[in-house]
Amino acid sequence: MTATLALDYAAVFVFALTGALVASRAQLDIVGFVFMACLTAVGGGTMRDVILKRAVFWVEEPTYIFVASLAAVLVFFTAHVLESRLKAIFWLDAVALSVAVPAGVAAAVDQGASWPIVLIMGITTGCLGGLMRDVVCNEVPLVLKQGELYVTCALAGAVAAVLTLTAAGPLPLALLLCGAVTFALRAGGLAFQWRLPVYKSQPPRS
Amino acid sequence: MTATLALDYAAVFVFALTGALVASRAQLDIVGFVFMACLTAVGGGTMRDVILKRAVFWVEEPTYIFVASLAAVLVFFTAHVLESRLKAIFWLDAVALSVAVPAGVAAAVDQGASWPIVLIMGITTGCLGGLMRDVVCNEVPLVLKQGELYVTCALAGAVAAVLTLTAAGPLPLALLLCGAVTFALRAGGLAFQWRLPVYKSQPPRS
Amino acid sequence: MTATLALDYAAVFVFALTGALVASRAQLDIVGFVFMACLTAVGGGTMRDVILKRAVFWVEEPTYIFVASLAAVLVFFTAHVLESRLKAIFWLDAVALSVAVPAGVAAAVDQGASWPIVLIMGITTGCLGGLMRDVVCNEVPLVLKQGELYVTCALAGAVAAVLTLTAAGPLPLALLLCGAVTFALRAGGLAFQWRLPVYKSQPPRS
Repeated sequence: MTATLALDYAAVFVFALTGALVASRAQLDIVGFVFMACLTAVGGGTMRDVILKRAVFWVEEPTYIFVASLAAVLVFFTAHVLESRLKAIFWLDAVALSVAVPAGVAAAVDQGASWPIVLIMGITTGCLGGLMRDVVCNEVPLVLKQGELYVTCALAGAVAAVLTLTAAGPLPLALLLCGAVTFALRAGGLAFQWRLPVYKSQPPRS
Repeated sequence: MTATLALDYAAVFVFALTGALVASRAQLDIVGFVFMACLTAVGGGTMRDVILKRAVFWVEEPTYIFVASLAAVLVFFTAHVLESRLKAIFWLDAVALSVAVPAGVAAAVDQGASWPIVLIMGITTGCLGGLMRDVVCNEVPLVLKQGELYVTCALAGAVAAVLTLTAAGPLPLALLLCGAVTFALRAGGLAFQWRLPVYKSQPPRS
Repeated sequence: MTATLALDYAAVFVFALTGALVASRAQLDIVGFVFMACLTAVGGGTMRDVILKRAVFWVEEPTYIFVASLAAVLVFFTAHVLESRLKAIFWLDAVALSVAVPAGVAAAVDQGASWPIVLIMGITTGCLGGLMRDVVCNEVPLVLKQGELYVTCALAGAVAAVLTLTAAGPLPLALLLCGAVTFALRAGGLAFQWRLPVYKSQPPRS
């Protein structure tokens, strides 16, 4: 199992957990849990593959869908033990992000893409599944929450990978650094409210 | 005209009706009706074709667009005779779903896809056009309405088709059963409030 | 630089400005500005390329992403000088629409597409980026605002191009007319409230 494969499976499982948790907040039935889990889990990677003209990863290997469905079933029967589902969503999502960004980077590198495309595919794979989850369920997109450090983490992680590769570092190291930087920043954002300055020269207008 | 083709046309027409009815609820002009009708009618099938790397069906055969536009014009001039547009949307959508799911199944079988992909393509073709319609028009997605039997119907129909094919049944029978199961479940959901148990161990949290 | 290329760059820059202005209304940080700018700027053209099975334009030529990011940075540091950001969004969006519609038409003609597909690709390229921007940021989609002349302008512009080509007119003239018609209608809509009659036979129902 290559690094890309392992990362893809892990990202799919953890994102599926967050999708199912959002489904539990919306009080859907079990098929709704599976639907949301799959959408969240494979949404970003599907966009990546479609844009890069690769075969869509879960069409090639439907096991991903079983993994995501399993996560949904797990959550359906255990979500009530969580004290705060919203907090669980945030932290699981941080883990998934830190796995999905290197997965996207690996796929783009595998295609021989140039570095700007590597950056974008890291961000796409990491952020679009969660964006679809939130848009479909009418939650405020985590990606765009005011002053939330999110896309920034994905970008920083992807930059770390590109810099490592440019310095002739090996791919596994690049992916590891990518995930570590992404998680460190996101965790800092969640735990210590790390922020970039937001645009606030005026009150928003209607 | 193959079975796939006939199903595609029928699904496009009926989904276009529902898209136009949602446009009438949003009080759009006639071009808005056509836009919403086309988005709803071809959205799911477009996703299916893009993911399966097939030529997009309405690019190959633009007649689909005319069919959807015709449905939009029809609704623009006649929607006021309906007593309840919301009820009409639900029931027309049920018919469209029962036609689109077999259309998606047929396309995936035609590609020689494995059974999990056949199931997913049935659900994708059936559910994503309506999901786009509702997300764009800011309606609560029918697909995800709390306790509404929707994705479940598509899944059950696709399972019926896969079981028939596995038992060496002919494709037309499989597609017929698929549509029948989908419609029966969805109609039962609408008429008798058939439901799966929803996740409700705790009140939803903010 | 071909006509298609020049139009694509111009459309990307101006749509990116509108995406960044929406980001400023949502008070995002600078990475959020870049994210929204890129989504708005390349969303419509990406859909066009995926549906037409072309290589996605910004994967081939990542300069587009730099152009969009530059627009985002520009807006981040200067948006506060605008007296009304909403008005600026409307007018910039009108310019971008008038450039993106011919860009979509040119790409479809370049593929040898039939005229219905040329029309749809003009509308797709012109309208879907802005639609994604508004859906993601929870603004009422400009495309579908009640009684707003929007998709209609794109359609009229694309029709003008198709008629010119049918009359054996040269492509550059067709693209010029396409942009001019689109802008004239949209500007008339913004300045003089030009409208098509909307569907309003009954009050909207819940």
